[in-house]
Amino acid sequence: VNVNRPIALMTDFGYKDPFVGMMKSVVLGINPSARIIDLCHEIAPGDVRSASFALMVSFRYLPEGTVVVAVIDPGVGTGRDAIAAEIEGHIVVCPDNGLLTWLLTKHHLTKAVSLVNREYFLPEVSSTFHGRDVFAPVAAHLSSGLPIEDLGPAAGDLTTFGAPEAVEAERSVRGEVVYVDQFGNLLTNITPEMCRGLGAEGRLESLRVELGSLEVLGVREAYGEVPRGHIVVVVGSAGVLEIAVNGGNAAHTLQFGIGTPVLVYGSADLR
Amino acid sequence: VNVNRPIALMTDFGYKDPFVGMMKSVVLGINPSARIIDLCHEIAPGDVRSASFALMVSFRYLPEGTVVVAVIDPGVGTGRDAIAAEIEGHIVVCPDNGLLTWLLTKHHLTKAVSLVNREYFLPEVSSTFHGRDVFAPVAAHLSSGLPIEDLGPAAGDLTTFGAPEAVEAERSVRGEVVYVDQFGNLLTNITPEMCRGLGAEGRLESLRVELGSLEVLGVREAYGEVPRGHIVVVVGSAGVLEIAVNGGNAAHTLQFGIGTPVLVYGSADLR
Amino acid sequence: VNVNRPIALMTDFGYKDPFVGMMKSVVLGINPSARIIDLCHEIAPGDVRSASFALMVSFRYLPEGTVVVAVIDPGVGTGRDAIAAEIEGHIVVCPDNGLLTWLLTKHHLTKAVSLVNREYFLPEVSSTFHGRDVFAPVAAHLSSGLPIEDLGPAAGDLTTFGAPEAVEAERSVRGEVVYVDQFGNLLTNITPEMCRGLGAEGRLESLRVELGSLEVLGVREAYGEVPRGHIVVVVGSAGVLEIAVNGGNAAHTLQFGIGTPVLVYGSADLR
Repeated sequence: VNVNRPIALMTDFGYKDPFVGMMKSVVLGINPSARIIDLCHEIAPGDVRSASFALMVSFRYLPEGTVVVAVIDPGVGTGRDAIAAEIEGHIVVCPDNGLLTWLLTKHHLTKAVSLVNREYFLPEVSSTFHGRDVFAPVAAHLSSGLPIEDLGPAAGDLTTFGAPEAVEAERSVRGEVVYVDQFGNLLTNITPEMCRGLGAEGRLESLRVELGSLEVLGVREAYGEVPRGHIVVVVGSAGVLEIAVNGGNAAHTLQFGIGTPVLVYGSADLR
Repeated sequence: VNVNRPIALMTDFGYKDPFVGMMKSVVLGINPSARIIDLCHEIAPGDVRSASFALMVSFRYLPEGTVVVAVIDPGVGTGRDAIAAEIEGHIVVCPDNGLLTWLLTKHHLTKAVSLVNREYFLPEVSSTFHGRDVFAPVAAHLSSGLPIEDLGPAAGDLTTFGAPEAVEAERSVRGEVVYVDQFGNLLTNITPEMCRGLGAEGRLESLRVELGSLEVLGVREAYGEVPRGHIVVVVGSAGVLEIAVNGGNAAHTLQFGIGTPVLVYGSADLR
Repeated sequence: VNVNRPIALMTDFGYKDPFVGMMKSVVLGINPSARIIDLCHEIAPGDVRSASFALMVSFRYLPEGTVVVAVIDPGVGTGRDAIAAEIEGHIVVCPDNGLLTWLLTKHHLTKAVSLVNREYFLPEVSSTFHGRDVFAPVAAHLSSGLPIEDLGPAAGDLTTFGAPEAVEAERSVRGEVVYVDQFGNLLTNITPEMCRGLGAEGRLESLRVELGSLEVLGVREAYGEVPRGHIVVVVGSAGVLEIAVNGGNAAHTLQFGIGTPVLVYGSADLR
């Protein structure tokens, strides 16, 4: 039994109200020595897609055996399933609404159960705040060593929303913006590995990146390689191509966002 | 002696400046194994009423024996009293400015003392930041087992602002909006229990809710029971009737806020 | 060896994305019993000067032997040095971009090393997120007792930006606004001690404070000593003269900010 697993929280509850604080209170009431990591709590309300991407990006940095609690739950109280999913030694506890989509494109699901055993919920379960009444107490019990099987029966097929995959053609890679961070950087679903075959062995500095009517020559190592206020494409910390404005906000400046198509060519190729 | 009580913090200090960080630093300097829960730190500056309501809503979820530090303190340095209040095994440390008002409508005060013993403050006390210089060190000492009596003499009558109570008439309940959460949901001071006597045994789906010129038929279990963008009245996670817009922001859309009158009728009754 | 030093984090990463959460995950992966304090994470993007001031203000309240991680790093990936600096028993880990400027005006640097020993970084170091890949793991190792010398060779002269110093003349002190907090209070680089020689032995209530075309008579003990909405000068919690609007936002109301000149006279002196 893995005792006192860390607990990592991701929600869209923000910081104005004591919602996250109540979840932590519930956790500490059940596991007084719980170690809690706030992943982030300002996911846009109900934005399951961005949360799913943020979850994937964070996942490989979690301490071994972490219990992740992800509560972006626009369908709370309407009969959507609640699940615990074991993925590479971590356990993710969340509504079954697509939150695991991006994670499952890269990581292997070992086991998933439906949260039906009310013994591990709070005695009184509201219909609008399962973060506090279901997910927090379940996570606290898991952190103390409860086997995932005790939570309920195996879950059926998990809900996913179809993460947009980049398409690798002979002379280009076609992807899109899949996440906008708070600096306004536009993260794509295109990795440098996908670009290897594009002209000049796909050296990053020789790539051409197109989004909308915009064309940027060269993928850089750091935002600061271009003057302030200039557009720059980097391999960002999430391991994907990222369009930024050095010292600025690309989403505001360029008026692009999630779904904007992005194309990458070798510089020698015409469009 | 209850050793290493958890410490829960609620302030209006926000996250831009290191104010909350300094409070936590002071706590850990005194009690190196302190366990700290952030309840919330984005109460609107000086909004004692909303903080008081948020405190009440959170209270029953706190781990046993928690020391709550609530610093919404517009009168800091002007002679208002500072207190520690024992309430159902928890201790709340705060300025005596009404913060306990909502809490004391539901929970029993066992004991309250004035914070006068400077031995438990920081050596130097500023006149503008008692959160750091008074409340944090006092809470740290309490968390380590200091008896509340050591902090000072019994406090006199506590300051309260008169929490607005809903009025139960024969055919209606008349209350008001008392809190607006960050999703723009309008929380009222009306509980479903108060509505039991209203027509059809007060079944939630048969109630009529009026606020301003607006009338909503039926109280639901979940936001998602109405289409996106529609107004919905639910029994929210705070246990009170709550007016929301599914997937939207009721406060912005409806332009209602704290103090807006809310009436509940049985559906069979005319206004 | 000082084992399990607390870790204090200051960044400009905000709360929307899981950047801070990934840093904490990395820390707990290396030191499972790490105690983490969030100083603040909403420093304006790239605002090294404000971060440096916030760091100085927080510093004396840190628990003994704290490892501070400050990541306001607009030059990440462009060859700026990364350092660990021992200052009065604490260790600050940060990019060498001026972040220590204000701290070093008041506190003594014992030792500084360049972070070059990659053994204490994550195995894979991105060029855009050293907070996660360099500073967090280094801090975690330091918190577990790693000697600072093991991180790399002695650093050369540290980068500073020249903190603006107030000038004490015979009949006035001339300083400026150096930090604006989230309430819009304007913090200056003028301490009450500097004003001692100004007329009437520099009693605070007899001082005249000028900023722009504005003149305020008297320095007060608390914001609440003037009516709501009025301008007030206090000795704030940072120990410096601070211009505020009671219950309001001085920065918005007065349209002053960092760099605005501030003059203090004795009340008997003409300008």
